[in-house]
Amino acid sequence: MTAPLRLDASFDEVDDRLVGLMEALFHPTGVAGVYGRRGVYEDVVERLAAFVSAHREDGTEVMRFPPVMSRRTLERSGYLKSFPNLLGCMCALGGTERDIRAAVATFEAGGDWTEGLEAGDLVLTPAACYPVYPIAARRGPLPEGGLRFDVASDCFRREPSPHADRFQSFRMREYVCIGSPADVAAFRERWIDTAQGMAGRLGLPYALEQANDPFFGKVGLMMAAMQRQDALKFELVVPVRSAEKPTACMSFNNHKDHFGDVWGIRDAEGGIAHTGCVAFGMDRLAVAMFATHGTDPAGWPAAVRDALRF
Amino acid sequence: MTAPLRLDASFDEVDDRLVGLMEALFHPTGVAGVYGRRGVYEDVVERLAAFVSAHREDGTEVMRFPPVMSRRTLERSGYLKSFPNLLGCMCALGGTERDIRAAVATFEAGGDWTEGLEAGDLVLTPAACYPVYPIAARRGPLPEGGLRFDVASDCFRREPSPHADRFQSFRMREYVCIGSPADVAAFRERWIDTAQGMAGRLGLPYALEQANDPFFGKVGLMMAAMQRQDALKFELVVPVRSAEKPTACMSFNNHKDHFGDVWGIRDAEGGIAHTGCVAFGMDRLAVAMFATHGTDPAGWPAAVRDALRF
Repeated sequence: MTAPLRLDASFDEVDDRLVGLMEALFHPTGVAGVYGRRGVYEDVVERLAAFVSAHREDGTEVMRFPPVMSRRTLERSGYLKSFPNLLGCMCALGGTERDIRAAVATFEAGGDWTEGLEAGDLVLTPAACYPVYPIAARRGPLPEGGLRFDVASDCFRREPSPHADRFQSFRMREYVCIGSPADVAAFRERWIDTAQGMAGRLGLPYALEQANDPFFGKVGLMMAAMQRQDALKFELVVPVRSAEKPTACMSFNNHKDHFGDVWGIRDAEGGIAHTGCVAFGMDRLAVAMFATHGTDPAGWPAAVRDALRF
Repeated sequence: MTAPLRLDASFDEVDDRLVGLMEALFHPTGVAGVYGRRGVYEDVVERLAAFVSAHREDGTEVMRFPPVMSRRTLERSGYLKSFPNLLGCMCALGGTERDIRAAVATFEAGGDWTEGLEAGDLVLTPAACYPVYPIAARRGPLPEGGLRFDVASDCFRREPSPHADRFQSFRMREYVCIGSPADVAAFRERWIDTAQGMAGRLGLPYALEQANDPFFGKVGLMMAAMQRQDALKFELVVPVRSAEKPTACMSFNNHKDHFGDVWGIRDAEGGIAHTGCVAFGMDRLAVAMFATHGTDPAGWPAAVRDALRF
């Protein structure tokens, strides 16, 4: 209880060019990549969500997930092998009332009370689609043409950064396809096309790039190379911090049979289901809109305001 | 990697009367109190949010907060002393690449990889208003009449429960007043009045009750008694599980000078600021709507559908 009042939170460490942008959109909270959001920013996030919804394909089932999910489900999904460094796990004080009271006493004496924390059965959801696969699997074999879902979640990845395009806590929206290899391939092709039209209507300069996930460690370098070799990930990137290092605002992913295998999902022909998704980084898209068009939506181009139903 | 596939998640443990309701609104995820949300439910949550917004007082500043917040801020707010058992802390694997790789190897060998977790600088936000006080404090002394905020956050409390009215992960919306003792007292009186009108327009049977927070342990019993003695908390309760044990869907809180003291906030006269809030449990309100009016909003009373702009 002896630490100084923390009223000094600021954006001092944000790239110079974007400090003004960050101040117009966010309130610092004392932790890099975790920000309070101003009304003007939230309004745009909500309008972007409605814009994404307006492009939802027929026959797509809507699900929303909370910011925490079953640890067991994520472990089984293979996340620990690929991104163990990014995972946030929910821990809580365990034991008896006496044990918990002792931890509080340690805190009040200025000590480290967190030694009493025990890992719980929840983790912070790192991507919006992980919870959908076991739910789909419970329904048995897929119908002809597969299944499509519209999912969203607040996501968390443990990568503190001062950059305006990398938050620890951010919102992800996804359209997911679970079906035959052909269903998933066609789904991804359609969305790569649709998404570029969306970026155009939002007035965002963009490029489509082949990409890979940030797999962990030395083994991860090989996984990333294989992912690129098989062209399993594309990103729609927008210049936010700079043209040289554009920011991935959407991604188009083919997971092949990974989740079908993990959860025992069969397609209509009895083969292991393939899955794929298009992911919209809602906070990155919103930041990109303000970085591109300015901090006051009243001054955005008429066509862009139209697309967002201002 | 040897655990059985977890496709058996169900609502078996939910009160008998509400199993059908839960199945109509949610998808089980294998953890009690953490559910996937169906489209019909999310639509009502969004309409309720707009309904709450429509009652926002003039001069109220909108802020939205992510589902995690600075651990230091929450510690200083006094949360550990009052609710140490409910706090979820974000922990992550620390150390070198070798350390993290060892934890993954432990997991792959079927061991407990969570022993490598270290407490981070973030906790899961337990109530939507905690982050607003240090932000307000940075602005210096309050203006005449104080400040009012509209805040919202996904919240987390570590209390697994099979009940339809107690989630671990849920959404909270709050109007907050920071001002003189008179500002806060008047704010709370106004909202106790306004909120009852809102419940009426939503067609919810309700009662207003004096209440207390679930302070931890034996010392907590005394804190709860003092809170009741000073009439610092009221709740608007709605019968969801039963008329005998109605569910608190809104609360009206006077924190007196607690947060003003913690964050050094002064009112316009130079006294320690008082704070108060009205909190809307968005998920509890939504569940109460479905429990009261039925699982299909198409059949809800016309006046209620009108209030929610169906």
